[in-house]
Amino acid sequence: MASKIVPARGMRDVLPAEKARREHALRVIREVYRSFGFDEIEAPALEELSRLESGQGGENEKMLFKVLRRGLDPDEALKPADAADLGLRFDLTVPLSRYVASNAAVLRTPAKLLQIGPVWRAERPQKGRYRQFVQCDIDVVGEPGAVAEVELVTATDTALRRLGLTGTTLRINDREVLTGLLTGCGFAEDAHGSVLITVDKADKIGLDGVMAELREKGFADGHVASLRSALDELLTITSLSDPAALAAALPDAVPAQAVQRLGEIGAALAVSAPELPVVFDVSLVRGMGYYTGPIFEMALAGSGSSIAGGGRYDRMVGRFSGRDLPACGFSIGFERIAEHVALETDASRAVALVHAADVPAGDLVRRQREMAAEGYRVALVKQAKRMQPLFDKLVEEGYGSVVRARVGDDGATVFTDPAPLGSSAG
Amino acid sequence: MASKIVPARGMRDVLPAEKARREHALRVIREVYRSFGFDEIEAPALEELSRLESGQGGENEKMLFKVLRRGLDPDEALKPADAADLGLRFDLTVPLSRYVASNAAVLRTPAKLLQIGPVWRAERPQKGRYRQFVQCDIDVVGEPGAVAEVELVTATDTALRRLGLTGTTLRINDREVLTGLLTGCGFAEDAHGSVLITVDKADKIGLDGVMAELREKGFADGHVASLRSALDELLTITSLSDPAALAAALPDAVPAQAVQRLGEIGAALAVSAPELPVVFDVSLVRGMGYYTGPIFEMALAGSGSSIAGGGRYDRMVGRFSGRDLPACGFSIGFERIAEHVALETDASRAVALVHAADVPAGDLVRRQREMAAEGYRVALVKQAKRMQPLFDKLVEEGYGSVVRARVGDDGATVFTDPAPLGSSAG
Repeated sequence: MASKIVPARGMRDVLPAEKARREHALRVIREVYRSFGFDEIEAPALEELSRLESGQGGENEKMLFKVLRRGLDPDEALKPADAADLGLRFDLTVPLSRYVASNAAVLRTPAKLLQIGPVWRAERPQKGRYRQFVQCDIDVVGEPGAVAEVELVTATDTALRRLGLTGTTLRINDREVLTGLLTGCGFAEDAHGSVLITVDKADKIGLDGVMAELREKGFADGHVASLRSALDELLTITSLSDPAALAAALPDAVPAQAVQRLGEIGAALAVSAPELPVVFDVSLVRGMGYYTGPIFEMALAGSGSSIAGGGRYDRMVGRFSGRDLPACGFSIGFERIAEHVALETDASRAVALVHAADVPAGDLVRRQREMAAEGYRVALVKQAKRMQPLFDKLVEEGYGSVVRARVGDDGATVFTDPAPLGSSAG
Repeated sequence: MASKIVPARGMRDVLPAEKARREHALRVIREVYRSFGFDEIEAPALEELSRLESGQGGENEKMLFKVLRRGLDPDEALKPADAADLGLRFDLTVPLSRYVASNAAVLRTPAKLLQIGPVWRAERPQKGRYRQFVQCDIDVVGEPGAVAEVELVTATDTALRRLGLTGTTLRINDREVLTGLLTGCGFAEDAHGSVLITVDKADKIGLDGVMAELREKGFADGHVASLRSALDELLTITSLSDPAALAAALPDAVPAQAVQRLGEIGAALAVSAPELPVVFDVSLVRGMGYYTGPIFEMALAGSGSSIAGGGRYDRMVGRFSGRDLPACGFSIGFERIAEHVALETDASRAVALVHAADVPAGDLVRRQREMAAEGYRVALVKQAKRMQPLFDKLVEEGYGSVVRARVGDDGATVFTDPAPLGSSAG
């Protein structure tokens, strides 16, 4: 027996039934976002390594798949750092920023863009997590106001509901709230990144764990205690309906306009996406280094797992183009929602065209083409001695009808009308 | 000014108008192939290097993008050959063969599979040729008979016609005809590969050029002269309607059943795809080393450029699984057909929702959502002093209607009915 043939480590094959569900989901997502005026674009999967290693991608930069430089002398030894010049994108936001910088002259302002495609991260292989996975991102570039956030969230809520994913919740916070809070508690600005990495673990290790880790990292007891007491109070505030109460609970270092913007987003979403619960959560951090304003995450009730996340990143495009451009994005973790999507098909319109071996191929495929044009899905199936196992498989795949072809007494091919394909059909 | 920001060398960005056409084309292709009973699958873009460098991919293997091994010691120098363990696929056929070998236990037999996705080749950058491009492949795996070829060609002909691409021609030949011909002319079997690489250039350098190159390569004058005279005669045969005449013109070394199969395919396609001209062309070679039987290529009249190609590769799956499985595939060169596809949209259903800055975001996006649900495509546009340039751009992008939003005297938001968006709308 040959050795086991499997996809490359951490990668996976998608089988037909799952792929049909995935393509159905992508089609609905494309339709909904397009109806909200988002234009789909496509950027290459490979980008120059220097753009991917800018330090904005947080932990994801460590999971880069790097591509060997072309034209290397095969006999000349070299250090790994000199061997690669391109990388596979680890998200769609860095390429989007590069794309906008490259094509600013021809894009509308604000640009509302949709990007769907695979990204690659060399994560430690584990169940349900793969090294290649699909993201769906929408971004509004060139709009500084909260209407961008409202549009992104409303369009995504609409798409997910159209896919049958109700029971979602949006958690929202603001990077300016977080950094103002840290400043107010006495943390120096250059320590904010490290503190936020720890705060981000609150849902895993709890607030006690967060505080312990911060002390381990050597932060002053007074600052840590001050943060603890601020978080204890702020975590009791989950509604954005009273921005004044939120502002009162926050240190002065938090810009008033950040709180006001959160209130504006909350009020607008109550009108534009009334079925979506919106929850303020001061412990929401999101990993990426590039966020500058509101950040948000959508979770499925029940599983509680995050299915989409995003936020404002006003200084990222400027890193490429040299000119800052306000931007805000929302990314659907497609792999997670694809598991929850059902595809309903009409089995009576899916036909197994069963034929004897002597039926001429031209007649068969001509009939297949005619039925396909009439809206049927038609699988050619050669007559065999034991049909039942194959019929069972076809039924499993959504086929519900059978047409039989044979050569008639006069030598012409004869086709039956479609009949139900059931357990008695064999 | 910042330096010019461009995609990585040889790669490109797809702009919104072109992307909309591409997605429309992919949707039609998916629908048609699905209606012919092909099941879409998805394999990872990365495969183990050893599978991609099996020698079956011909020239394409030289254009592999290789991916740096993970976990390398950054300080330890190493040879390029030891630095990589994965590669980006250069076509969809090698991954398909690996996929079928991996998933044989759960796939139907014969399996009829559709695969759509990007492939990567480090070709010398040149106009209109990119290092990342999309292929659409259909494959029938497990069917030894000509019905596989007939189905592949008929389904592809149907898809291309649905996209408005008429005026196509199919050229067809058979690898067994070619190798039998070479044997008959005296060429040793181990020289066939080299001779075919030269014959493949016939449309560029002419038959005289082919013969000159073969002599340069050191092949015996007698064999070359014999091949020349055989080709001169065989090139006058372009129809498959008289297999006996074709057989008579071929050396005995060509298996009779190969000629018979060509005749069967020609006769069947005349019934199942009657609008498609089918031309026998003994000089058709196709580059890949893995073909074993009929090979074919579809070209657009006018441009004459090949837009799809494929053939039978009965021994490729066996290279992975250890068990040969007959297989036949047809691949659409998607980039070439995408240029020729038009997307017609209804401009009256695409609405610019123009709003003053003081209109609440919630009201705006709620109206946008309502109109999107009614089938409109709605772009939010903020009122500015000079609207005309933006309106011109929107018209160019297919928007044909305008709705205006303002805050009424009573403080409530007022929306106008859709009106035409024209040059007078500003």
